[in-house]
Amino acid sequence: MNIVCIGSGNVATHLAIALKAMGAEIVQVWSQDSRNAEILAALTKAKPVLDWQEIDRSADLYLIAVKDDAIPAVASHLKGVKGIVVHTAGAIDMNVLQGAGSGYGVLYPLQTFSKTKSIDLTHVPFCIEADRPGTLEKIAAVAHLLSQQAAELSSEQRKILHVAAVFACNFTNHLYHLSSQLLEQHQLKFDLLKPLITETAQKIQNALPSDVQTGPAVRDDQETMKSHLELLEGSPELQQLYETLSTSIKKTHLL
Amino acid sequence: MNIVCIGSGNVATHLAIALKAMGAEIVQVWSQDSRNAEILAALTKAKPVLDWQEIDRSADLYLIAVKDDAIPAVASHLKGVKGIVVHTAGAIDMNVLQGAGSGYGVLYPLQTFSKTKSIDLTHVPFCIEADRPGTLEKIAAVAHLLSQQAAELSSEQRKILHVAAVFACNFTNHLYHLSSQLLEQHQLKFDLLKPLITETAQKIQNALPSDVQTGPAVRDDQETMKSHLELLEGSPELQQLYETLSTSIKKTHLL
Repeated sequence: MNIVCIGSGNVATHLAIALKAMGAEIVQVWSQDSRNAEILAALTKAKPVLDWQEIDRSADLYLIAVKDDAIPAVASHLKGVKGIVVHTAGAIDMNVLQGAGSGYGVLYPLQTFSKTKSIDLTHVPFCIEADRPGTLEKIAAVAHLLSQQAAELSSEQRKILHVAAVFACNFTNHLYHLSSQLLEQHQLKFDLLKPLITETAQKIQNALPSDVQTGPAVRDDQETMKSHLELLEGSPELQQLYETLSTSIKKTHLL
Repeated sequence: MNIVCIGSGNVATHLAIALKAMGAEIVQVWSQDSRNAEILAALTKAKPVLDWQEIDRSADLYLIAVKDDAIPAVASHLKGVKGIVVHTAGAIDMNVLQGAGSGYGVLYPLQTFSKTKSIDLTHVPFCIEADRPGTLEKIAAVAHLLSQQAAELSSEQRKILHVAAVFACNFTNHLYHLSSQLLEQHQLKFDLLKPLITETAQKIQNALPSDVQTGPAVRDDQETMKSHLELLEGSPELQQLYETLSTSIKKTHLL
């Protein structure tokens, strides 16, 4: 399978390297950033490309992994190419690819990618969608090269999943950041929290989050919440988040 | 070592069972809930006790693991007992124990406990504090029975750590809940998010959370955030949280 990789960010990097490792040929890496294109091309023995004129139009798969709002423009460059065209975004409708390639669809890995950390994709759910059954089969084959988990989801379902992932991952990571910052301000090590963070994520693998909620809000422990808000007096932002999230916990568990 | 366990909730249960497993003798379990006292007493071969008059006053250690605001009242019952008295709360000053036992202090395990899930305490940080060096030595010995990690923290430091833990654990778990609920409303399985949740917690074990932040807010991806807010139109509470947390991410990363 010959693949043209459009993009050189986190998702492009992880997918291209994994596909290469599974025996696919990455023929080209397109990026508007020439340095990033060269790095990913070097990692996957591909050719870096900056100019749309030079795109190989006879590849089997065009893998779009660029910033969400750049996807429609990329798709317009891929009209008439031989292979199928997929994007990898959680929040973007499949139909923005209409007219691109000999078929089009979505291959969305539900995971958080950082360039500096390698990820075993085997257990990452890949959400797939296609313009028609023939394309879906091809996209499913690509998904199964990478992972044991592929789920066919409509664009609407995928978007909901993407919002849910923002809460469970992006917002969660930001809470980790806020807590690390608070500790730093008081000369305490973030390392102290790491076993707790691991256990919190571990716990919900076999339990509903609402069944394992702990902390002062779910106990309606007024005294502790009051003293926490006092401790946060120097950080109005943390105070506001503390109140908003505690209220939300109480709404869930105490009403 | 003879221990009287005061309380029969999550923390009391995990600590008493672990101490018993390490060879300590749990002589009594006090609880105001007779059924819970009996259950934990049965698990640790202790005697359940409901009446303060019956408390064994010659034990080596009195382990208080009750609701935060009940600690001062418990401490008043432990004046004059032979052993040392510790509480296990993150948010409560050590000095509420003043006058209890032959020495007093804190043994706070920084972890989230649910009765139904067993936890390996070996890597749980125990925050310890004592009225004087002799007591500290004894509390450190108990901590080291349970875990490889003990850190001496003042009451002020422990309180900060406790607030940070509320952000990193309690609020995080609530975000898991909100995302699971959103998926459920759209007939999607929470299972899809579990690998992502694991990876998000895994990632910060060796990186600063701020260095691995992902998602639309840190990219300042306006279109995606707008479409997410539209998708959440049926849930004003989620919309508000989405905006508050996205603003906080932008403040951290984009200003």
